[in-house]
Amino acid sequence: MKTIELKMTVTDSNDRDAEALRRELSERGIFLVNLMSAPGSGKTTLISHTITDLKDRVKIGVMEADIASDVDAQRICELGAESIQVHTDGMCHMDAGMTREGLAGMEGENEIVFLENVGNLICPAEFDTGAHKNVMILSVPEGDDKPLKYPLMFQRSDALVITKMDAAPYFDFDLEAVKMRAGKLNPSIRIFPVSAKTGEGMAEWENYLLSEWEMRHA
Amino acid sequence: MKTIELKMTVTDSNDRDAEALRRELSERGIFLVNLMSAPGSGKTTLISHTITDLKDRVKIGVMEADIASDVDAQRICELGAESIQVHTDGMCHMDAGMTREGLAGMEGENEIVFLENVGNLICPAEFDTGAHKNVMILSVPEGDDKPLKYPLMFQRSDALVITKMDAAPYFDFDLEAVKMRAGKLNPSIRIFPVSAKTGEGMAEWENYLLSEWEMRHA
Repeated sequence: MKTIELKMTVTDSNDRDAEALRRELSERGIFLVNLMSAPGSGKTTLISHTITDLKDRVKIGVMEADIASDVDAQRICELGAESIQVHTDGMCHMDAGMTREGLAGMEGENEIVFLENVGNLICPAEFDTGAHKNVMILSVPEGDDKPLKYPLMFQRSDALVITKMDAAPYFDFDLEAVKMRAGKLNPSIRIFPVSAKTGEGMAEWENYLLSEWEMRHA
Repeated sequence: MKTIELKMTVTDSNDRDAEALRRELSERGIFLVNLMSAPGSGKTTLISHTITDLKDRVKIGVMEADIASDVDAQRICELGAESIQVHTDGMCHMDAGMTREGLAGMEGENEIVFLENVGNLICPAEFDTGAHKNVMILSVPEGDDKPLKYPLMFQRSDALVITKMDAAPYFDFDLEAVKMRAGKLNPSIRIFPVSAKTGEGMAEWENYLLSEWEMRHA
Protein backbone atom coordinates (compact mmCIF):
# COMPACT_ATOMS: atom_id res chain seq x y z
CA MET A 1 0.00 0.00 0.00
CA LYS A 2 1.33 3.34 -1.08
CA THR A 3 0.88 6.83 0.35
CA ILE A 4 1.17 9.93 -1.82
CA GLU A 5 1.49 13.46 -0.46
CA LEU A 6 -0.45 15.71 -2.85
CA LYS A 7 0.22 19.37 -3.40
CA MET A 8 -2.74 21.62 -4.03
CA THR A 9 -3.38 21.97 -7.74
CA VAL A 10 -3.27 25.56 -8.87
CA THR A 11 -5.57 25.77 -11.84
CA ASP A 12 -8.45 27.91 -12.93
CA SER A 13 -9.68 25.29 -15.31
CA ASN A 14 -10.74 22.41 -13.07
CA ASP A 15 -13.83 21.68 -15.14
CA ARG A 16 -11.74 21.31 -18.30
CA ASP A 17 -9.16 19.15 -16.50
CA ALA A 18 -11.96 16.98 -15.14
CA GLU A 19 -13.49 16.49 -18.60
CA ALA A 20 -10.11 15.50 -20.03
CA LEU A 21 -9.44 13.04 -17.19
CA ARG A 22 -12.89 11.46 -17.57
CA ARG A 23 -12.29 10.93 -21.30
CA GLU A 24 -8.85 9.41 -20.74
CA LEU A 25 -10.15 7.04 -18.09
CA SER A 26 -12.97 5.92 -20.40
CA GLU A 27 -10.42 5.16 -23.10
CA ARG A 28 -8.37 3.12 -20.62
CA GLY A 29 -11.48 1.19 -19.53
CA ILE A 30 -11.52 2.59 -16.00
CA PHE A 31 -14.84 3.52 -14.39
CA LEU A 32 -14.15 6.14 -11.70
CA VAL A 33 -16.70 6.59 -8.90
CA ASN A 34 -16.36 9.56 -6.54
CA LEU A 35 -17.76 8.75 -3.09
CA MET A 36 -18.59 11.78 -0.95
CA SER A 37 -19.98 11.99 2.57
CA ALA A 38 -19.62 13.45 6.03
CA PRO A 39 -16.93 11.97 8.28
CA GLY A 40 -17.90 8.61 9.75
CA SER A 41 -20.77 7.78 7.39
CA GLY A 42 -19.36 4.34 6.63
CA LYS A 43 -17.75 4.91 3.20
CA THR A 44 -14.89 2.47 3.83
CA THR A 45 -17.23 -0.18 5.22
CA LEU A 46 -19.49 0.16 2.16
CA ILE A 47 -16.49 -0.14 -0.17
CA SER A 48 -15.13 -3.16 1.73
CA HIS A 49 -18.39 -5.06 1.44
CA THR A 50 -18.82 -4.10 -2.20
CA ILE A 51 -15.32 -5.38 -3.02
CA THR A 52 -15.94 -8.64 -1.16
CA ASP A 53 -19.25 -9.21 -2.95
CA LEU A 54 -18.02 -8.31 -6.45
CA LYS A 55 -14.43 -9.50 -6.45
CA ASP A 56 -15.08 -12.41 -8.83
CA ARG A 57 -16.85 -10.18 -11.36
CA VAL A 58 -14.83 -6.97 -11.58
CA LYS A 59 -11.44 -5.72 -10.45
CA ILE A 60 -11.87 -2.83 -8.00
CA GLY A 61 -9.19 -0.43 -6.77
CA VAL A 62 -9.54 2.30 -4.15
CA MET A 63 -7.98 5.73 -3.71
CA GLU A 64 -8.41 6.96 -0.13
CA ALA A 65 -8.17 10.73 0.24
CA ASP A 66 -7.57 12.06 3.73
CA ILE A 67 -5.84 14.94 5.43
CA ALA A 68 -3.96 12.51 7.66
CA SER A 69 -3.63 8.80 8.52
CA ASP A 70 -3.86 5.69 6.36
CA VAL A 71 -6.33 3.68 8.43
CA ASP A 72 -8.86 3.42 5.59
CA ALA A 73 -6.35 2.35 2.95
CA GLN A 74 -5.02 -0.32 5.33
CA ARG A 75 -8.52 -1.77 5.71
CA ILE A 76 -8.98 -2.03 1.92
CA CYS A 77 -5.48 -3.45 1.47
CA GLU A 78 -6.34 -6.33 3.79
CA LEU A 79 -9.07 -7.39 1.33
CA GLY A 80 -6.45 -7.96 -1.36
CA ALA A 81 -7.65 -5.04 -3.52
CA GLU A 82 -5.27 -2.34 -4.69
CA SER A 83 -5.56 0.63 -2.38
CA ILE A 84 -3.66 3.87 -2.39
CA GLN A 85 -3.68 6.58 0.26
CA VAL A 86 -3.44 10.20 -0.82
CA HIS A 87 -2.92 13.02 1.66
CA THR A 88 -4.45 16.30 0.58
CA ASP A 89 -1.97 18.69 2.20
CA GLY A 90 -4.75 20.01 4.47
CA MET A 91 -7.20 20.51 1.60
CA CYS A 92 -10.83 19.71 2.35
CA HIS A 93 -11.64 18.22 -1.06
CA MET A 94 -10.17 16.53 -4.14
CA ASP A 95 -10.06 18.21 -7.53
CA ALA A 96 -9.31 16.77 -10.98
CA GLY A 97 -5.56 17.47 -10.82
CA MET A 98 -5.20 15.81 -7.43
CA THR A 99 -7.26 12.84 -8.62
CA ARG A 100 -5.04 12.46 -11.68
CA GLU A 101 -1.94 12.55 -9.49
CA GLY A 102 -3.34 9.83 -7.23
CA LEU A 103 -4.43 7.63 -10.15
CA ALA A 104 -0.93 7.87 -11.62
CA GLY A 105 0.30 6.09 -8.50
CA MET A 106 -2.00 3.09 -9.02
CA GLU A 107 -0.44 0.10 -10.74
CA GLY A 108 -3.17 -2.55 -10.97
CA GLU A 109 -5.43 -3.15 -13.97
CA ASN A 110 -8.50 -1.92 -12.13
CA GLU A 111 -11.85 -1.77 -13.92
CA ILE A 112 -13.65 0.24 -11.25
CA VAL A 113 -11.80 2.75 -9.08
CA PHE A 114 -13.50 4.23 -6.02
CA LEU A 115 -12.23 7.66 -5.03
CA GLU A 116 -13.09 7.97 -1.34
CA ASN A 117 -13.15 11.75 -1.12
CA VAL A 118 -12.33 13.71 2.05
CA GLY A 119 -15.11 13.40 4.66
CA ASN A 120 -16.96 16.68 4.13
CA LEU A 121 -20.47 17.50 2.85
CA ILE A 122 -19.55 20.92 1.49
CA CYS A 123 -16.37 21.51 -0.48
CA PRO A 124 -16.13 18.18 -2.39
CA ALA A 125 -19.48 18.97 -4.04
CA GLU A 126 -17.96 22.05 -5.63
CA PHE A 127 -15.13 20.30 -7.52
CA ASP A 128 -15.50 17.94 -10.46
CA THR A 129 -12.89 15.21 -9.88
CA GLY A 130 -13.20 13.68 -13.35
CA ALA A 131 -15.29 10.79 -12.00
CA HIS A 132 -17.95 9.17 -14.18
CA LYS A 133 -20.40 9.02 -11.29
CA ASN A 134 -20.75 10.95 -8.04
CA VAL A 135 -22.18 8.95 -5.19
CA MET A 136 -23.15 10.46 -1.87
CA ILE A 137 -23.29 8.43 1.34
CA LEU A 138 -25.62 9.51 4.13
CA SER A 139 -25.74 7.45 7.32
CA VAL A 140 -28.92 7.11 9.37
CA PRO A 141 -27.45 8.65 12.57
CA GLU A 142 -26.68 11.90 10.70
CA GLY A 143 -30.39 12.61 10.43
CA ASP A 144 -33.02 13.17 7.76
CA ASP A 145 -32.54 16.95 7.57
CA LYS A 146 -29.29 16.81 5.60
CA PRO A 147 -30.83 17.59 2.16
CA LEU A 148 -32.13 20.84 3.67
CA LYS A 149 -28.70 21.82 5.00
CA TYR A 150 -26.33 20.60 2.26
CA PRO A 151 -28.38 20.93 -0.94
CA LEU A 152 -25.47 21.15 -3.41
CA MET A 153 -24.14 17.71 -2.45
CA PHE A 154 -27.52 16.15 -3.25
CA GLN A 155 -27.77 18.09 -6.50
CA ARG A 156 -24.34 16.96 -7.69
CA SER A 157 -24.78 13.28 -6.85
CA ASP A 158 -26.02 10.64 -9.29
CA ALA A 159 -26.78 8.23 -6.48
CA LEU A 160 -27.39 8.40 -2.74
CA VAL A 161 -26.52 5.41 -0.59
CA ILE A 162 -28.18 5.58 2.84
CA THR A 163 -25.99 3.51 5.18
CA LYS A 164 -26.43 2.02 8.68
CA MET A 165 -30.11 1.24 8.00
CA ASP A 166 -29.82 -1.41 10.74
CA ALA A 167 -29.50 1.49 13.23
CA ALA A 168 -32.78 3.09 12.10
CA PRO A 169 -34.77 1.77 15.11
CA TYR A 170 -32.47 3.70 17.49
CA PHE A 171 -32.68 7.06 15.76
CA ASP A 172 -35.40 9.41 14.59
CA PHE A 173 -34.81 8.99 10.88
CA ASP A 174 -37.59 9.39 8.35
CA LEU A 175 -36.47 7.57 5.19
CA GLU A 176 -39.44 8.80 3.18
CA ALA A 177 -38.66 12.39 4.16
CA VAL A 178 -35.08 11.98 2.91
CA LYS A 179 -36.28 10.47 -0.37
CA MET A 180 -38.72 13.31 -0.84
CA ARG A 181 -36.21 16.05 0.04
CA ALA A 182 -33.41 14.56 -2.08
CA GLY A 183 -35.77 13.99 -5.00
CA LYS A 184 -36.93 17.57 -4.86
CA LEU A 185 -33.31 18.79 -5.19
CA ASN A 186 -32.40 16.19 -7.80
CA PRO A 187 -35.27 14.34 -9.48
CA SER A 188 -32.97 11.81 -11.21
CA ILE A 189 -30.99 10.78 -8.10
CA ARG A 190 -30.99 7.01 -7.44
CA ILE A 191 -31.44 6.10 -3.77
CA PHE A 192 -30.18 2.89 -2.12
CA PRO A 193 -30.90 2.29 1.58
CA VAL A 194 -28.39 -0.32 2.78
CA SER A 195 -26.90 -1.97 5.81
CA ALA A 196 -23.43 -3.39 5.37
CA LYS A 197 -23.98 -5.16 8.70
CA THR A 198 -27.10 -7.14 7.72
CA GLY A 199 -26.57 -7.04 3.94
CA GLU A 200 -29.95 -5.30 3.42
CA GLY A 201 -30.06 -3.43 0.11
CA MET A 202 -26.46 -4.24 -0.86
CA ALA A 203 -27.50 -6.23 -3.95
CA GLU A 204 -29.46 -3.28 -5.38
CA TRP A 205 -26.51 -0.93 -4.89
CA GLU A 206 -24.05 -3.43 -6.39
CA ASN A 207 -26.33 -4.11 -9.36
CA TYR A 208 -26.52 -0.38 -10.04
CA LEU A 209 -22.74 -0.14 -9.91
CA LEU A 210 -22.23 -3.16 -12.17
CA SER A 211 -24.79 -1.99 -14.70
CA GLU A 212 -23.24 1.49 -14.88
CA TRP A 213 -19.81 -0.10 -15.33
CA GLU A 214 -21.00 -2.63 -17.94
CA MET A 215 -22.72 0.10 -19.93
CA ARG A 216 -19.36 1.85 -20.29
CA HIS A 217 -17.38 -1.36 -20.63
CA ALA A 218 -19.39 -2.86 -23.50
CA MET B 1 -36.08 34.44 14.63
CA LYS B 2 -33.89 36.28 12.20
CA THR B 3 -31.86 35.09 9.20
CA ILE B 4 -28.78 36.96 8.01
CA GLU B 5 -27.09 36.35 4.66
CA LEU B 6 -23.36 36.78 5.24
CA LYS B 7 -20.86 37.76 2.62
CA MET B 8 -17.42 36.23 2.80
CA THR B 9 -15.08 38.42 4.80
CA VAL B 10 -12.07 39.48 2.81
CA THR B 11 -9.30 39.95 5.32
CA ASP B 12 -5.77 38.80 5.74
CA SER B 13 -5.84 39.45 9.44
CA ASN B 14 -8.38 37.02 10.81
CA ASP B 15 -6.29 36.24 13.89
CA ARG B 16 -6.15 39.95 14.78
CA ASP B 17 -9.87 40.40 14.14
CA ALA B 18 -10.60 37.38 16.31
CA GLU B 19 -8.48 38.72 19.19
CA ALA B 20 -10.28 42.08 19.00
CA LEU B 21 -13.72 40.45 18.93
CA ARG B 22 -12.86 38.21 21.91
CA ARG B 23 -11.76 41.25 23.93
CA GLU B 24 -14.90 43.23 23.04
CA LEU B 25 -17.18 40.34 23.98
CA SER B 26 -15.39 39.94 27.32
CA GLU B 27 -15.96 43.62 28.04
CA ARG B 28 -19.65 43.24 27.20
CA GLY B 29 -19.92 40.18 29.49
CA ILE B 30 -20.61 37.72 26.69
CA PHE B 31 -19.00 34.28 26.80
CA LEU B 32 -18.78 32.97 23.21
CA VAL B 33 -18.47 29.21 22.66
CA ASN B 34 -17.67 27.90 19.18
CA LEU B 35 -19.18 24.44 18.61
CA MET B 36 -17.63 22.47 15.77
CA SER B 37 -18.43 19.00 14.45
CA ALA B 38 -19.25 16.88 11.44
CA PRO B 39 -22.79 17.12 10.03
CA GLY B 40 -25.33 15.25 12.09
CA SER B 41 -23.31 14.86 15.29
CA GLY B 42 -26.11 16.26 17.43
CA LYS B 43 -24.90 19.84 18.03
CA THR B 44 -28.41 21.31 18.05
CA THR B 45 -29.74 18.57 20.32
CA LEU B 46 -26.86 19.16 22.77
CA ILE B 47 -27.52 22.91 22.75
CA SER B 48 -31.27 22.41 23.24
CA HIS B 49 -30.78 20.23 26.30
CA THR B 50 -28.14 22.54 27.71
CA ILE B 51 -30.47 25.54 27.37
CA THR B 52 -33.35 23.65 28.99
CA ASP B 53 -31.16 22.54 31.92
CA LEU B 54 -29.51 25.94 32.51
CA LYS B 55 -32.24 28.41 31.61
CA ASP B 56 -32.81 29.51 35.23
CA ARG B 57 -29.10 30.14 35.83
CA VAL B 58 -27.77 31.86 32.71
CA LYS B 59 -29.18 33.51 29.60
CA ILE B 60 -28.08 31.59 26.50
CA GLY B 61 -28.38 32.70 22.88
CA VAL B 62 -27.50 30.72 19.76
CA MET B 63 -26.09 31.66 16.36
CA GLU B 64 -26.72 28.87 13.85
CA ALA B 65 -24.34 28.94 10.87
CA ASP B 66 -25.38 26.95 7.82
CA ILE B 67 -25.06 27.09 4.08
CA ALA B 68 -28.83 26.75 3.74
CA SER B 69 -32.04 26.22 5.74
CA ASP B 70 -33.09 27.45 9.17
CA VAL B 71 -34.21 24.16 10.70
CA ASP B 72 -31.71 24.38 13.58
CA ALA B 73 -32.52 27.98 14.49
CA GLN B 74 -36.23 27.11 14.49
CA ARG B 75 -35.62 24.32 17.00
CA ILE B 76 -33.76 26.66 19.38
CA CYS B 77 -36.36 29.39 18.93
CA GLU B 78 -39.07 27.02 20.16
CA LEU B 79 -37.23 26.80 23.51
CA GLY B 80 -37.70 30.52 24.03
CA ALA B 81 -33.99 31.33 23.69
CA GLU B 82 -32.75 33.93 21.23
CA SER B 83 -31.59 32.21 18.09
CA ILE B 84 -30.28 33.69 14.91
CA GLN B 85 -29.63 31.92 11.63
CA VAL B 86 -26.66 32.99 9.53
CA HIS B 87 -26.13 31.74 5.99
CA THR B 88 -22.49 31.55 4.98
CA ASP B 89 -22.88 32.25 1.26
CA GLY B 90 -21.58 28.74 0.48
CA MET B 91 -18.59 29.06 2.80
CA CYS B 92 -17.64 25.94 4.73
CA HIS B 93 -16.61 27.70 7.95
CA MET B 94 -17.10 30.86 10.03
CA ASP B 95 -14.35 33.40 10.57
CA ALA B 96 -14.12 36.32 13.01
CA GLY B 97 -15.65 38.86 10.63
CA MET B 98 -18.63 36.65 9.87
CA THR B 99 -19.09 35.92 13.57
CA ARG B 100 -19.04 39.64 14.36
CA GLU B 101 -21.64 40.28 11.66
CA GLY B 102 -23.91 37.58 13.08
CA LEU B 103 -23.51 38.79 16.67
CA ALA B 104 -24.46 42.30 15.59
CA GLY B 105 -27.85 40.90 14.62
CA MET B 106 -28.54 39.52 18.11
CA GLU B 107 -30.65 41.70 20.35
CA GLY B 108 -30.99 39.84 23.66
CA GLU B 109 -28.82 40.34 26.74
CA ASN B 110 -27.22 36.93 26.40
CA GLU B 111 -24.52 35.83 28.83
CA ILE B 112 -23.44 32.76 26.90
CA VAL B 113 -23.66 32.63 23.11
CA PHE B 114 -23.18 29.33 21.27
CA LEU B 115 -21.89 29.66 17.74
CA GLU B 116 -22.98 26.47 16.01
CA ASN B 117 -20.38 26.43 13.26
CA VAL B 118 -20.94 24.85 9.82
CA GLY B 119 -20.97 21.02 10.02
CA ASN B 120 -17.43 20.23 8.89
CA LEU B 121 -14.42 18.68 10.66
CA ILE B 122 -11.81 20.42 8.53
CA CYS B 123 -12.11 24.09 7.60
CA PRO B 124 -13.68 25.47 10.82
CA ALA B 125 -10.58 24.31 12.74
CA GLU B 126 -8.43 26.64 10.66
CA PHE B 127 -10.24 29.89 11.53
CA ASP B 128 -10.31 31.61 14.90
CA THR B 129 -13.88 32.94 15.26
CA GLY B 130 -13.14 35.11 18.29
CA ALA B 131 -14.75 32.57 20.64
CA HIS B 132 -13.47 32.16 24.19
CA LYS B 133 -13.69 28.39 23.97
CA ASN B 134 -13.69 25.92 21.09
CA VAL B 135 -15.74 22.81 21.70
CA MET B 136 -15.74 19.84 19.37
CA ILE B 137 -18.64 17.39 19.19
CA LEU B 138 -18.00 13.82 18.10
CA SER B 139 -20.91 11.39 17.95
CA VAL B 140 -20.48 7.69 18.65
CA PRO B 141 -21.71 6.52 15.20
CA GLU B 142 -18.91 8.53 13.51
CA GLY B 143 -16.34 6.14 14.91
CA ASP B 144 -13.30 6.18 17.18
CA ASP B 145 -10.79 6.80 14.38
CA LYS B 146 -11.64 10.49 13.95
CA PRO B 147 -8.64 11.86 15.93
CA LEU B 148 -6.38 10.02 13.46
CA LYS B 149 -8.11 11.53 10.44
CA TYR B 150 -8.90 15.08 11.59
CA PRO B 151 -6.07 15.91 14.01
CA LEU B 152 -6.23 19.72 13.74
CA MET B 153 -9.81 19.84 15.03
CA PHE B 154 -8.79 17.95 18.17
CA GLN B 155 -5.73 20.16 18.61
CA ARG B 156 -7.75 23.37 18.38
CA SER B 157 -10.53 22.33 20.75
CA ASP B 158 -10.58 23.07 24.48
CA ALA B 159 -13.23 20.44 25.10
CA LEU B 160 -14.58 17.38 23.31
CA VAL B 161 -18.19 16.35 23.88
CA ILE B 162 -18.84 12.77 22.78
CA THR B 163 -22.55 12.58 21.96
CA LYS B 164 -25.04 9.73 21.39
CA MET B 165 -23.37 7.58 24.07
CA ASP B 166 -26.69 5.74 24.38
CA ALA B 167 -26.01 4.33 20.89
CA ALA B 168 -22.64 2.86 21.93
CA PRO B 169 -23.96 -0.71 22.25
CA TYR B 170 -24.94 -0.71 18.56
CA PHE B 171 -21.63 0.54 17.16
CA ASP B 172 -17.99 -0.48 17.42
CA PHE B 173 -16.83 2.54 19.37
CA ASP B 174 -13.89 2.38 21.75
CA LEU B 175 -14.24 5.34 24.13
CA GLU B 176 -10.87 4.70 25.74
CA ALA B 177 -9.20 4.71 22.32
CA VAL B 178 -10.76 8.12 21.53
CA LYS B 179 -9.62 9.52 24.89
CA MET B 180 -6.11 8.24 24.30
CA ARG B 181 -5.91 9.51 20.70
CA ALA B 182 -7.41 12.91 21.52
CA GLY B 183 -5.19 13.28 24.58
CA LYS B 184 -2.11 12.53 22.52
CA LEU B 185 -2.99 15.35 20.10
CA ASN B 186 -4.05 17.73 22.85
CA PRO B 187 -3.05 16.84 26.43
CA SER B 188 -5.22 19.57 28.00
CA ILE B 189 -8.46 18.73 26.16
CA ARG B 190 -11.44 18.12 28.47
CA ILE B 191 -13.60 15.16 27.43
CA PHE B 192 -17.32 14.76 28.22
CA PRO B 193 -19.13 11.61 27.05
CA VAL B 194 -22.87 12.42 27.07
CA SER B 195 -26.26 11.27 25.93
CA ALA B 196 -28.86 13.97 25.49
CA LYS B 197 -31.42 11.16 25.27
CA THR B 198 -30.73 9.56 28.68
CA GLY B 199 -29.12 12.61 30.32
CA GLU B 200 -25.89 10.66 31.00
CA GLY B 201 -22.91 13.00 31.44
CA MET B 202 -24.91 16.19 30.80
CA ALA B 203 -24.30 17.55 34.31
CA GLU B 204 -20.51 17.30 33.91
CA TRP B 205 -20.62 19.14 30.58
CA GLU B 206 -22.95 21.83 31.95
CA ASN B 207 -20.82 22.29 35.07
CA TYR B 208 -17.76 22.80 32.89
CA LEU B 209 -19.62 25.38 30.83
CA LEU B 210 -20.94 27.21 33.89
CA SER B 211 -17.56 27.26 35.62
CA GLU B 212 -15.84 28.62 32.51
CA TRP B 213 -18.53 31.29 32.22
CA GLU B 214 -18.45 32.19 35.92
CA MET B 215 -14.68 32.50 35.86
CA ARG B 216 -15.00 35.20 33.20
CA HIS B 217 -18.14 36.71 34.68
CA ALA B 218 -16.80 37.25 38.18
